[in-house]
Amino acid sequence: MDPITRPVSINGLRIGGADFMVIAGPCSIESRETFAVTAQSVAAHGAGMLRGGIFKIRTNPSSFQGLGRAAFEIVRSVRAQTGLPVVSELTDPRQIPELFDIVDMFQIGTRNMHNTVLLREVGASRKPVLLKRGFSATVEEWLLAAEYVADSGNPNVVLCERGIRTFERITRNTLDLAAVAYIKQNSRFPVLVDPSHGTGVRNLIAPMCRASAAVGADGLLLEVHCAPHQALSDADQALSLRDFAQIMRELEPLLPLFGRRLARPLRPSALSHEPVPSSTI
Amino acid sequence: MDPITRPVSINGLRIGGADFMVIAGPCSIESRETFAVTAQSVAAHGAGMLRGGIFKIRTNPSSFQGLGRAAFEIVRSVRAQTGLPVVSELTDPRQIPELFDIVDMFQIGTRNMHNTVLLREVGASRKPVLLKRGFSATVEEWLLAAEYVADSGNPNVVLCERGIRTFERITRNTLDLAAVAYIKQNSRFPVLVDPSHGTGVRNLIAPMCRASAAVGADGLLLEVHCAPHQALSDADQALSLRDFAQIMRELEPLLPLFGRRLARPLRPSALSHEPVPSSTI
Amino acid sequence: MDPITRPVSINGLRIGGADFMVIAGPCSIESRETFAVTAQSVAAHGAGMLRGGIFKIRTNPSSFQGLGRAAFEIVRSVRAQTGLPVVSELTDPRQIPELFDIVDMFQIGTRNMHNTVLLREVGASRKPVLLKRGFSATVEEWLLAAEYVADSGNPNVVLCERGIRTFERITRNTLDLAAVAYIKQNSRFPVLVDPSHGTGVRNLIAPMCRASAAVGADGLLLEVHCAPHQALSDADQALSLRDFAQIMRELEPLLPLFGRRLARPLRPSALSHEPVPSSTI
Amino acid sequence: MDPITRPVSINGLRIGGADFMVIAGPCSIESRETFAVTAQSVAAHGAGMLRGGIFKIRTNPSSFQGLGRAAFEIVRSVRAQTGLPVVSELTDPRQIPELFDIVDMFQIGTRNMHNTVLLREVGASRKPVLLKRGFSATVEEWLLAAEYVADSGNPNVVLCERGIRTFERITRNTLDLAAVAYIKQNSRFPVLVDPSHGTGVRNLIAPMCRASAAVGADGLLLEVHCAPHQALSDADQALSLRDFAQIMRELEPLLPLFGRRLARPLRPSALSHEPVPSSTI
Repeated sequence: MDPITRPVSINGLRIGGADFMVIAGPCSIESRETFAVTAQSVAAHGAGMLRGGIFKIRTNPSSFQGLGRAAFEIVRSVRAQTGLPVVSELTDPRQIPELFDIVDMFQIGTRNMHNTVLLREVGASRKPVLLKRGFSATVEEWLLAAEYVADSGNPNVVLCERGIRTFERITRNTLDLAAVAYIKQNSRFPVLVDPSHGTGVRNLIAPMCRASAAVGADGLLLEVHCAPHQALSDADQALSLRDFAQIMRELEPLLPLFGRRLARPLRPSALSHEPVPSSTI
Repeated sequence: MDPITRPVSINGLRIGGADFMVIAGPCSIESRETFAVTAQSVAAHGAGMLRGGIFKIRTNPSSFQGLGRAAFEIVRSVRAQTGLPVVSELTDPRQIPELFDIVDMFQIGTRNMHNTVLLREVGASRKPVLLKRGFSATVEEWLLAAEYVADSGNPNVVLCERGIRTFERITRNTLDLAAVAYIKQNSRFPVLVDPSHGTGVRNLIAPMCRASAAVGADGLLLEVHCAPHQALSDADQALSLRDFAQIMRELEPLLPLFGRRLARPLRPSALSHEPVPSSTI
Repeated sequence: MDPITRPVSINGLRIGGADFMVIAGPCSIESRETFAVTAQSVAAHGAGMLRGGIFKIRTNPSSFQGLGRAAFEIVRSVRAQTGLPVVSELTDPRQIPELFDIVDMFQIGTRNMHNTVLLREVGASRKPVLLKRGFSATVEEWLLAAEYVADSGNPNVVLCERGIRTFERITRNTLDLAAVAYIKQNSRFPVLVDPSHGTGVRNLIAPMCRASAAVGADGLLLEVHCAPHQALSDADQALSLRDFAQIMRELEPLLPLFGRRLARPLRPSALSHEPVPSSTI
Repeated sequence: MDPITRPVSINGLRIGGADFMVIAGPCSIESRETFAVTAQSVAAHGAGMLRGGIFKIRTNPSSFQGLGRAAFEIVRSVRAQTGLPVVSELTDPRQIPELFDIVDMFQIGTRNMHNTVLLREVGASRKPVLLKRGFSATVEEWLLAAEYVADSGNPNVVLCERGIRTFERITRNTLDLAAVAYIKQNSRFPVLVDPSHGTGVRNLIAPMCRASAAVGADGLLLEVHCAPHQALSDADQALSLRDFAQIMRELEPLLPLFGRRLARPLRPSALSHEPVPSSTI
């Protein structure tokens, strides 16, 4: 942790202090069952927050675009079951009122980092924001996008490095960890790393999680699916529940060396009265 | 002109056929006077349409963001004076109703090419759309963005190549004319070139205009300002009225070699009842 | 042509003045017959010089590496037959003495643009040099590489833009014509364009030839093969003899508009006593 | 360490096994005193090998090009004093015989990764080779370059990631740690990371060293200078002796977590008879 970082609070959890926040879940919420099973497993293995796409923004108009409002009730119940806050992507400022009570943090995705209309309105809402780097945004442009949100009255911005577009082909993007090191030294905003999109290659995610912790990131954003090969989007990079558990086991002894511990909900029991059926983990 | 291109009509003018459309005007509309003077001059020298930013999207939250609604009346009067249709950028789907009667073509800017919410709603509006390439979008992604608009019911899409982000530093972007050649052979959408943003260097615009005509583009989008050094945005790349006139003189003998002629409004006089003061040209 | 360009002379031909130099031939010299047939045809249709690889530099160690010395006699006889000067790539300074009398111009390829040892020794040789841009060299680095040659005593450098490496996938490289416009305005070295490597797509070569002429290039470097589908290297981008003839027909009416005419050998007949068998054209 | 890596031996030291090799020293050898002082200090703080440029390859012909042969005697004496093997860059195959007895490992620099003539002759020499990634080479091209060396009879290739050229400006290059993770899983060649060139920013080197160890790299290549601000090349990125010592202190507790320990010369005392003056450390 770096003294200049100003931590951001989400329902009592903090991103940017001594805690290392792991946010995990599927690319898109596809059904109640797959989201619940995935969420309970990642919660049991150390995730501090859940992710899951409700409104998706896809390059191809015929790709799966998310469940939309049909996912609201699913999110509400899984969040109550696990006690974990949820982050999900906004693609339109008009979604702010309806998503406001459903999620704990808004995500602005890589394709909207330059959408200043969305930045300003999310800024006016005061809810914590996860601002992904545009896949070809310079660090300077990314920090200016964060200022759009902060200038509109919302200082609760958490950055997320997710890889940039380069000529290299073995990975979907080139994960720019030096940008994370730079931000820790030069910006007040906490910063996470998304090695799922950042590499697009399942086998490279674990080593890049370790490297992210070592470089000083404040946490991770990971795509996890209870049946990766059936995922409706990003199947090549989704981690299985077992992969995720293994990554968390590897991270655990590493974090104290960097002055960190895993971020966990303060009173998880208070929120997760319902017993998690063992068969789902 | 290529047989597979399906021309798009704008108030009786066509983009994509034998006509070569030159759209010119300031980056932002800054005042009635500067817009009127610029518009009358470019009209007199062969522009077929006007451009001018009303709502600007800027990387830096403290940069000039456009006049907004205060520009509506200016656009209405200059359009009537010159008889030229106007294209201006939309940054938010909620601007569609109010801009609908002000402009003749909506522009979707480079930072919004991946904004599928905007693409769909502009698609539902049926008004012709100028779709700029994202500065790091592949041609495939760009054509898929055009399909978002077309799929939503609006086939009137005109593409605009405006340079891509590369490692090169002498130019602001790298203008990708091979992409234009590819589109002429493989897509039904007409395509323009914007060498103003594509190079960001005033002296390089004229040769890139000639190259654009030679490669088969259906026209040009050019930033022209009656006092470039006082422009509130993009001052380094704005052409003066004299620069623009010179470029048009150079293009004129070239176009017939490629089977083209300048697109001009059918009945300009019908629209421009008001006499254009000669002093402003 | 631009007043600041200092033309380079090659056996009485000039690159960089009012002449527009088209250099054509196969990627690699593969056999006496294919090189002779190709050379005679391109000569008949307006090429002013021949190209043909003798020593090839390939990314994969198991790809075809050129005929090497076995090509020397072939080059000598085809050059005499056609009367056209020949350019071929050097990959090692130790090749300078043996290639010196075989070719009329040394080529330094894209992979060697940063090889300052080669630049200096080619500079010491005084023979004209065709210096291709490194596929990820900035224009500034490219001009500095030309200065390495000039500083070593050889001002006879001709630059050649051949595309840069970007994220775009429809083309093998992104041909940077704005760099050519910049060089015409800011450097004394003449500059050619290689749309064969610059696009890697046969159908895109013709429009990019026209655009190169329009942007002010001093000529073209084109891969032509008498049987493109059998070429041992770069088969996807080699033009057929017919393609080449068609491109030259399209260029002819264009050049006078830019103050240019095709560069042709001064006394071709003096060198080409042997009748060209009509069947080969 | 990964089971598929085949370690490379250099004078009894190994790169690619349980040892983590830190190679340190100045960009260029500038004088006996600065090289000796730097070498003794990095040796005392855990470096296993020395680096130092003898023949430099510079973009600008008027930049400092290295001491050349005048450095030979300096290298010989510092290597004897410290007992550490030395790696230095070859820029010309004709340097192989003279450098053969001066250095313990040849480096092929980023600008020569595609120089297949040099790759083959270094391959024929059988001396261990440090092969830096071309700054715009794909991982596939880089591995093919290593095959050029191995195919020529020399399997002793160690790769070195040193950053790739992208649009980002805060760093000189974008260090691609995912490429390192990929190589550990897919190639038999060991791989080091050079965060000095990889970032070009002194303050970012320490976090990128930690990240490199965490991602699984077999070691580091670091620019260290006893008076960084007086360095004749790369002054902005050279670490001071104190910076280097601090980085080594941070790495020490980290390495055991990844199954590594620092590589140290087997019998340093045997090689360093001469007492190291304490004042220089």
